[in-house]
Amino acid sequence: MAKPLITLTTDFGDADYYVPAMKGVILSINPAAEIVDLTHQIPPHDIYAAAFMLKCCYIDFPNDTIHVVVVDPGVGSNRRAIMVMTDNHRFIGPDNGVFSYIYQCEPVNRIVHFTTEHYFRSPVSNTFHGRDVFAPCAAYVSKLVEWRMMGEEISDPVRFNIPAPATLADGRIKGHVIHIDRFGNVITNITAGELTDAAIAAGARVRIGKMEPARVLTHFAEAGPNELFAYFGSAGFLELAVLRQSAARMAEARRGAEVEVVV
Amino acid sequence: MAKPLITLTTDFGDADYYVPAMKGVILSINPAAEIVDLTHQIPPHDIYAAAFMLKCCYIDFPNDTIHVVVVDPGVGSNRRAIMVMTDNHRFIGPDNGVFSYIYQCEPVNRIVHFTTEHYFRSPVSNTFHGRDVFAPCAAYVSKLVEWRMMGEEISDPVRFNIPAPATLADGRIKGHVIHIDRFGNVITNITAGELTDAAIAAGARVRIGKMEPARVLTHFAEAGPNELFAYFGSAGFLELAVLRQSAARMAEARRGAEVEVVV
Amino acid sequence: MAKPLITLTTDFGDADYYVPAMKGVILSINPAAEIVDLTHQIPPHDIYAAAFMLKCCYIDFPNDTIHVVVVDPGVGSNRRAIMVMTDNHRFIGPDNGVFSYIYQCEPVNRIVHFTTEHYFRSPVSNTFHGRDVFAPCAAYVSKLVEWRMMGEEISDPVRFNIPAPATLADGRIKGHVIHIDRFGNVITNITAGELTDAAIAAGARVRIGKMEPARVLTHFAEAGPNELFAYFGSAGFLELAVLRQSAARMAEARRGAEVEVVV
Repeated sequence: MAKPLITLTTDFGDADYYVPAMKGVILSINPAAEIVDLTHQIPPHDIYAAAFMLKCCYIDFPNDTIHVVVVDPGVGSNRRAIMVMTDNHRFIGPDNGVFSYIYQCEPVNRIVHFTTEHYFRSPVSNTFHGRDVFAPCAAYVSKLVEWRMMGEEISDPVRFNIPAPATLADGRIKGHVIHIDRFGNVITNITAGELTDAAIAAGARVRIGKMEPARVLTHFAEAGPNELFAYFGSAGFLELAVLRQSAARMAEARRGAEVEVVV
Repeated sequence: MAKPLITLTTDFGDADYYVPAMKGVILSINPAAEIVDLTHQIPPHDIYAAAFMLKCCYIDFPNDTIHVVVVDPGVGSNRRAIMVMTDNHRFIGPDNGVFSYIYQCEPVNRIVHFTTEHYFRSPVSNTFHGRDVFAPCAAYVSKLVEWRMMGEEISDPVRFNIPAPATLADGRIKGHVIHIDRFGNVITNITAGELTDAAIAAGARVRIGKMEPARVLTHFAEAGPNELFAYFGSAGFLELAVLRQSAARMAEARRGAEVEVVV
Repeated sequence: MAKPLITLTTDFGDADYYVPAMKGVILSINPAAEIVDLTHQIPPHDIYAAAFMLKCCYIDFPNDTIHVVVVDPGVGSNRRAIMVMTDNHRFIGPDNGVFSYIYQCEPVNRIVHFTTEHYFRSPVSNTFHGRDVFAPCAAYVSKLVEWRMMGEEISDPVRFNIPAPATLADGRIKGHVIHIDRFGNVITNITAGELTDAAIAAGARVRIGKMEPARVLTHFAEAGPNELFAYFGSAGFLELAVLRQSAARMAEARRGAEVEVVV
């Protein structure tokens, strides 16, 4: 039988006691659990960045993995602690919209509001539910405690609007930047659903900021030196890059910036 | 039976070969060991920061966990390599005061000075005892080698003075800042032992730098926008914060800065 | 039987989905695999830095460890995906020279070019072979799939020239800086093979930049305050340091800078 697998995504960084405290709590409850860090470098309180991170890699994990997200600016308020259950995964975190992409990508079987204090660390602090609520609940779920024991079903989770690209009457596509990665690659919210092979074959180009509209390539090797070019990246989104340079710096692009596909 | 658990706390960062070399040595000696990083972002040579880190989360780990700390500015001198044994935990590292909080928090059963070179990596370098002494000794301890085989008991470990807050005759409490976290929250050395519920109910406020004295709240949700406020944090210390901003930046607070509770 | 051990070295940083996606893929194929991070902080596209990292610590890992390196500026071109097999280790990554130190340090039994798409993630993206080729191949190798099933033997791997120090007729040794660590210690390519005990006993000194030539010491404790000194570090290379300060900053040293031993 496979080891129970728990992933962690937080905005706690790697210099404070917050992440190891969560790991200690999990391993105290379920020593058999295996913990994998997605990232702890989510910018403080950035629920959207955490949602995007999870969206890009949860699918690569084995069935029955438990994904815990603690980006929780509302800790200590009355926001709920929840578990989203799909056929193959479970997602645990604050009910603040951090699972909005999951609601969009996956049929959800059930959402549970954790209410049974028996499964919390005691006492529960007002400031660190990562350690006191989410970590212990994840550990108990990994020990196959029934969800009915841990809380009650809800049907009104908080979700934020995931802005979709708009396709105009003249064929232009208007999207925006959703992430900048370590290499300075610029990830947009435009997918192959909007930008078709036919449009690419017809010479569609991608405009950002004041740059010359970029060609859409299939391989990095086709790009010239210093050329800003576009391609579909490994998460399925249209991206902009420059060989061995930062496209974000070259195009002065930030998250939220407008991107336009012109035909 | 639970897996043997070893945690690592160092000032090695995450870009050099020092941490993986330690992990390789541990797993070569005890492939069953499970290794958890507390942090490798201790500022170089900052023994106090390492001691504080350990203090804040060792208690969350399962019984019999082995906590290894390598912040070791005296490597290659005659400072001793030691293991501190308490009822439920073992702590391995240089005898430079890094376990001062442990001596304060836990009844210590025994302190062992590692002297048996048989349990060291060979040859022992003069500059990297994390790999050559602490990692292999931790691995052998995790394999249940008897401490008597590995060294001799000592009774005079190095400890540094942990500055306690002072309560003045007029009821004021004088403490100082001991840590700033990733969110810019300012952690002081004042605990509920000094600042009582009665004093809080009577309207005690917390002064730092040139800021207006801060209210003491129980939930972040009670704070107003841009308000500097105080609360007892998840490690049991009085902290200062500002909602979704850095209190440290707002108050220009650094570790060591004075904090005063006024009644 | 020991757990199959896989290490990861990348230039992906710790804030993007690239590393956890690789881990998810590995654990989906082989849930028994144990994954250890060497580092993900290799500067983007810096093949040399990755090669040096691997060289400094692969030897500390147990026999049969699989070391995966993904620093892959040529992803999507026709560079090959390879596995280098030695008596005790296997190394998986792009054929771009990243294993040059291994070719120098270890007798190589076989180099395999991975060509069997059956063992790749499907579909293979053009930009992220870490997830789509290297991670799944490493996972299958850890499940003891025969190399013959996965590809074909090659004999012409790419290797870069590892610049060796030069010993001049008058006894001077000319080397250069190959790494700067977190403490600001300056690691050179000079080893005990060039700088002998006899030369050290005769008063050899190490010159870098405009600094006074540095003494060669055996213990940090022998150094005076603010003294730039040299010593053989834990990876076997001559290093320069200053007690509790950054030698790199003091000497304005960068990777590639010249270092000279004078007698």
